[in-house]
Amino acid sequence: MPVLDALESLAELAPIGADDVRGGWSRHLLDDADRQMRAWFVRAASSLGLDVEEDANANQWATWAPAGAEGPAVATGSHLDSVPGGGPLDGPLGVVSALAAVSRLIAEGHAPAHPIRIANFAEEEGARFGVPCLGSQLLAGDIDTDRVRGLTDASGATYVDAMTAAGLDPAAIGRDASRLEDMALYLELHVEQGRQLAPLEAPVGIATSILAHGRWRVTVTGRGDHAGATELDSRRDPMLVAAATVEAARGRALAAAPPTRSRATVGKLQVVPGGSNAIASEVRLWIDARAEHDADVRVLVARIVSDAEAAARAEGCELTVAEESFSTRVEFDPELADRIGAALAPTFGEVPRIPTGAGHDAGILAAHLPTAMLFVRNPDGVSHSPHEGASDADIRAGVDALTDALRALTGDR
Amino acid sequence: MPVLDALESLAELAPIGADDVRGGWSRHLLDDADRQMRAWFVRAASSLGLDVEEDANANQWATWAPAGAEGPAVATGSHLDSVPGGGPLDGPLGVVSALAAVSRLIAEGHAPAHPIRIANFAEEEGARFGVPCLGSQLLAGDIDTDRVRGLTDASGATYVDAMTAAGLDPAAIGRDASRLEDMALYLELHVEQGRQLAPLEAPVGIATSILAHGRWRVTVTGRGDHAGATELDSRRDPMLVAAATVEAARGRALAAAPPTRSRATVGKLQVVPGGSNAIASEVRLWIDARAEHDADVRVLVARIVSDAEAAARAEGCELTVAEESFSTRVEFDPELADRIGAALAPTFGEVPRIPTGAGHDAGILAAHLPTAMLFVRNPDGVSHSPHEGASDADIRAGVDALTDALRALTGDR
Repeated sequence: MPVLDALESLAELAPIGADDVRGGWSRHLLDDADRQMRAWFVRAASSLGLDVEEDANANQWATWAPAGAEGPAVATGSHLDSVPGGGPLDGPLGVVSALAAVSRLIAEGHAPAHPIRIANFAEEEGARFGVPCLGSQLLAGDIDTDRVRGLTDASGATYVDAMTAAGLDPAAIGRDASRLEDMALYLELHVEQGRQLAPLEAPVGIATSILAHGRWRVTVTGRGDHAGATELDSRRDPMLVAAATVEAARGRALAAAPPTRSRATVGKLQVVPGGSNAIASEVRLWIDARAEHDADVRVLVARIVSDAEAAARAEGCELTVAEESFSTRVEFDPELADRIGAALAPTFGEVPRIPTGAGHDAGILAAHLPTAMLFVRNPDGVSHSPHEGASDADIRAGVDALTDALRALTGDR
Repeated sequence: MPVLDALESLAELAPIGADDVRGGWSRHLLDDADRQMRAWFVRAASSLGLDVEEDANANQWATWAPAGAEGPAVATGSHLDSVPGGGPLDGPLGVVSALAAVSRLIAEGHAPAHPIRIANFAEEEGARFGVPCLGSQLLAGDIDTDRVRGLTDASGATYVDAMTAAGLDPAAIGRDASRLEDMALYLELHVEQGRQLAPLEAPVGIATSILAHGRWRVTVTGRGDHAGATELDSRRDPMLVAAATVEAARGRALAAAPPTRSRATVGKLQVVPGGSNAIASEVRLWIDARAEHDADVRVLVARIVSDAEAAARAEGCELTVAEESFSTRVEFDPELADRIGAALAPTFGEVPRIPTGAGHDAGILAAHLPTAMLFVRNPDGVSHSPHEGASDADIRAGVDALTDALRALTGDR
């Protein structure tokens, strides 16, 4: 059985979903690119002799359970979908590193006391249906299945349409207790988002916590009209309200930033009808807000919305706000982090413990089982961008670290 | 030969290009909807016995030249394309009213001294390739043909691609001297944009002038990054610069409004990559600016751009500005307006003379031949919106007025 090389696997995936318009890669739940990624996962895992399955929530699983490996599995993995125009490593690095680590353990003759199971979680980025970590939330029973079935994508297709088109049964989604109980722990490797490891000169880090975060959709309705023929004082232009909301997000987050680590961003904004000589009739925008604790996020969003509502009143527009997702603050399991730190110490010395502002499937699962994350150094800290990166040496170090961790966590029979 | 009814014709056109996403209608140069509109024009004009042609610039023409009608034609018409999600009347009303008026003149046995020619000008709204009045500008030789051939639409297709796909020769576009010289004058009927006729209780008005106006594309480049993991003080977020530009457009126009009738609008804005959890790497937006005189527009845009550049510097972003179009102030021919006013007086009394902020093919042609416009009352003044409208009675009054005008302008042999 050949050892799978993470860098070679990333090179194989590079052509899939390359986005000529935005740059980077666009791979969204069950679209053409995502289906190619999923097919690659099946081929790669099968070539290592792993058992591959797809669960009712469109998550993929590959299990190594040699004779003697018993009890709940040590789970690892990440996701193969991307943000629109994202980078090459978030989250394929976690999936290919998991496959590479297991292939090495197989090659070295490791005899695990527990199975190792590799996950590819569906719709982690929420780029198609607006809800991040959708596959892991469904698995964990953390989200209402009727709500999920009614979610629509940008083309108006529902989640039910997407599942049905892929040959999956949308009636079967939801909490999967037996699969949850068959996981002893979950360890996700991910490229670092932000730049904490570079100043520490550390190729890998262990996560401590995830900021509380959520996503709110703001719809501003005004009155579409002619850009040339409409007097300024009779306009009801939702674009002005959107601009005020963008500025409120930055201003309110800055005002709250220390000590709450508050941040708020508008990265998605749609204008209807979108003609250059037409006053917009409607603008939709999304606020991504994060802070140390759940209450900090709630206060931050309430202040931004208050500013937006004042701007809407001034312009004669209507404004509605819908919470698309909310993820409570996550504390990863400190005891599991200690075990991983001890397993890495012979090669890596003292591994830094760092918090993160980014959500992950590991954050969802942390409420249900012991969970940990390994981060691979991102020299510029850039993420959700084609310029996201990690050196080849650090990618190899990440595989080394994950291999050491999985070896220790599955023990020798 | 049956008389063509303008309201029935509008009803026939209503299903074409209906936009389920934006509302209203989307009919853009040589797309499926526009081709159906153009085919309808050929059928309707042919059914009246008119000679139908398409010129090298994708404009359509239908000519009534009975025996005895000599010399350059009296031209009328408008356009059949729309803004994205536009209303039903801008500009099909001018085309169907022209066909209806000519059908009445034929039916009543009018013996014109000059031919009457009806135009459907291509890409009046500039919704596909960004340049309004493209067909009339090409005809008049007012725009560089190499620049036009290089224009691209939202999908990346060039003007050459679009023309070639429609079986037209993109090498043949440009000034059409013989066609220009074969027009004695151009009279365009259009639904009113803005609300000047309602308070005057007048169903129709005659145009005096068009505000100077233009369109500028602003591209703001920042650094794409993760919305959750990136510290506020290390962001270079082009969305903040876009928001400042939207507010500058309104603020600078308000400050200059009286006596220059200045107005500035951002109605089109695109975010790259556009993920809700990604800081944008680039935002493109379009400024539509108008004012009484050319110099007023130049000053207004310079002030908005100055504000935008200051915001870009503050955020560490790059900003570039490209002028997509500029239309000088238009004074319609006062003598022609007087002749039309006299022709309408028996039915309509004193017809109001009103200026407009909206650009038209008539404004392009005004630099080359005597030109006039008739406006049909728009009770709410709403335009470039599905809610644009005119009463059936006023639409009939518009056809009456255009019939009277064309009868007078072509004389009896």
